[in-house]
Amino acid sequence: MKSVLITGAAGNIGRVLRRGLRDDYLLRLTDCIQIVDPEVTDVQVADVRSVEEMEEVCKGIDSVVHLAGEPSTGSSWSVVLNANIEGTYGIFEAARLAGVKRVIFASSNHATGYYEKESIYTKPDMLARPDSLYGVSKAFGEDLARFYYDEYGINAYCLRIGSFQPDDSVINRSSDRILSTWLSHRDLVRLVRCCIETNNAEFGIYYGISNNTRAFWDIENAREEIGYSPEDDAEDLI
Amino acid sequence: MKSVLITGAAGNIGRVLRRGLRDDYLLRLTDCIQIVDPEVTDVQVADVRSVEEMEEVCKGIDSVVHLAGEPSTGSSWSVVLNANIEGTYGIFEAARLAGVKRVIFASSNHATGYYEKESIYTKPDMLARPDSLYGVSKAFGEDLARFYYDEYGINAYCLRIGSFQPDDSVINRSSDRILSTWLSHRDLVRLVRCCIETNNAEFGIYYGISNNTRAFWDIENAREEIGYSPEDDAEDLI
Repeated sequence: MKSVLITGAAGNIGRVLRRGLRDDYLLRLTDCIQIVDPEVTDVQVADVRSVEEMEEVCKGIDSVVHLAGEPSTGSSWSVVLNANIEGTYGIFEAARLAGVKRVIFASSNHATGYYEKESIYTKPDMLARPDSLYGVSKAFGEDLARFYYDEYGINAYCLRIGSFQPDDSVINRSSDRILSTWLSHRDLVRLVRCCIETNNAEFGIYYGISNNTRAFWDIENAREEIGYSPEDDAEDLI
Repeated sequence: MKSVLITGAAGNIGRVLRRGLRDDYLLRLTDCIQIVDPEVTDVQVADVRSVEEMEEVCKGIDSVVHLAGEPSTGSSWSVVLNANIEGTYGIFEAARLAGVKRVIFASSNHATGYYEKESIYTKPDMLARPDSLYGVSKAFGEDLARFYYDEYGINAYCLRIGSFQPDDSVINRSSDRILSTWLSHRDLVRLVRCCIETNNAEFGIYYGISNNTRAFWDIENAREEIGYSPEDDAEDLI
């Protein structure tokens, strides 16, 4: 079994991935707070910004799924600087030192959010246009991932996660946007599995959305390069 | 006369720009060390990472030329984090607070240096491929510049400066690379003037090189968008 470390494993996305991956991978969980998960015994409290602590946590790991960070798009500079910029450097550098060969980085659609504001259909090969300092911090993470791939050969997959809901049995439809941007729990797990398993692509930037009829982000590269085949469509939940 | 603030004005590029711009602009100089320049009286010592200090320095300024930062491509993470990432945030946020309408950011060809390592002719609309943590910090600055332009309407010009030599009367030819990447003093001044003066482009990423016969970075967008017309060619100095 492959070993998979999830950082920020206490969060909403972490909880879903733990359930979705635990039967097929040896999971290790880390977060800055304690996690109580009866199904996973390998749990370590650590600070993702500390390369030293994270190098310990990364030992023996095949793939890191890096979720740790501040998730709020309205975050201040000091918050994203600490949690997202320093934290993402921390995990990549620790992964390198520990010999990890693969990092899956939870980026965000907000790295390119200004295209959406201008109703521009967005492909992953377009330059970043962050819509927030949070989005800038995610664009930074993608550039760092590219550097660690080019320089050190660490396979890296940047997932620009769309709209993830803790409960995805119903669409929380405060606006119609979610019909375009929704990522179901099942498709999230599928996408991450593709990144863990692919032998085809070594680096990629992929929008993380379901097979939404109204999608305005292009996921063709995820289909072609890593075999991502989402099965849910927000349209079906209306 | 337009007012122009130069950050990092004590450095090699700063010295050349001071001479090249002082006759046509009201210059203000800032750096973390004292500058003695008999031709410029408006000099302020300040820390570019301090938004508060830089807001004072930015008051009444039409255009900022942001040169401050660590210039060494081999810099450690902590150095580029402080000098380049925090420093570039500091100047953009200060410019916004002070009402500055235009920022010219000294980026670097190292934001895309991995294309060069793979002998790929590079255009400014290609995704970043930094060749160093220094290059990552410059790619970060470009994404931040884009955000300040999109969100706050601050015109921003990112100059991926090539090979600048303190003495450019002769080519310091430790390798042939400089025949492709050279930026003469005169062309540097021309490029920055184009950014200060253009009414055409509001945001752009431009490689900062002379009209080198052997160039492997595309400067067509600088010619078209801001009227940059370099007159020197490294070939002529062989």
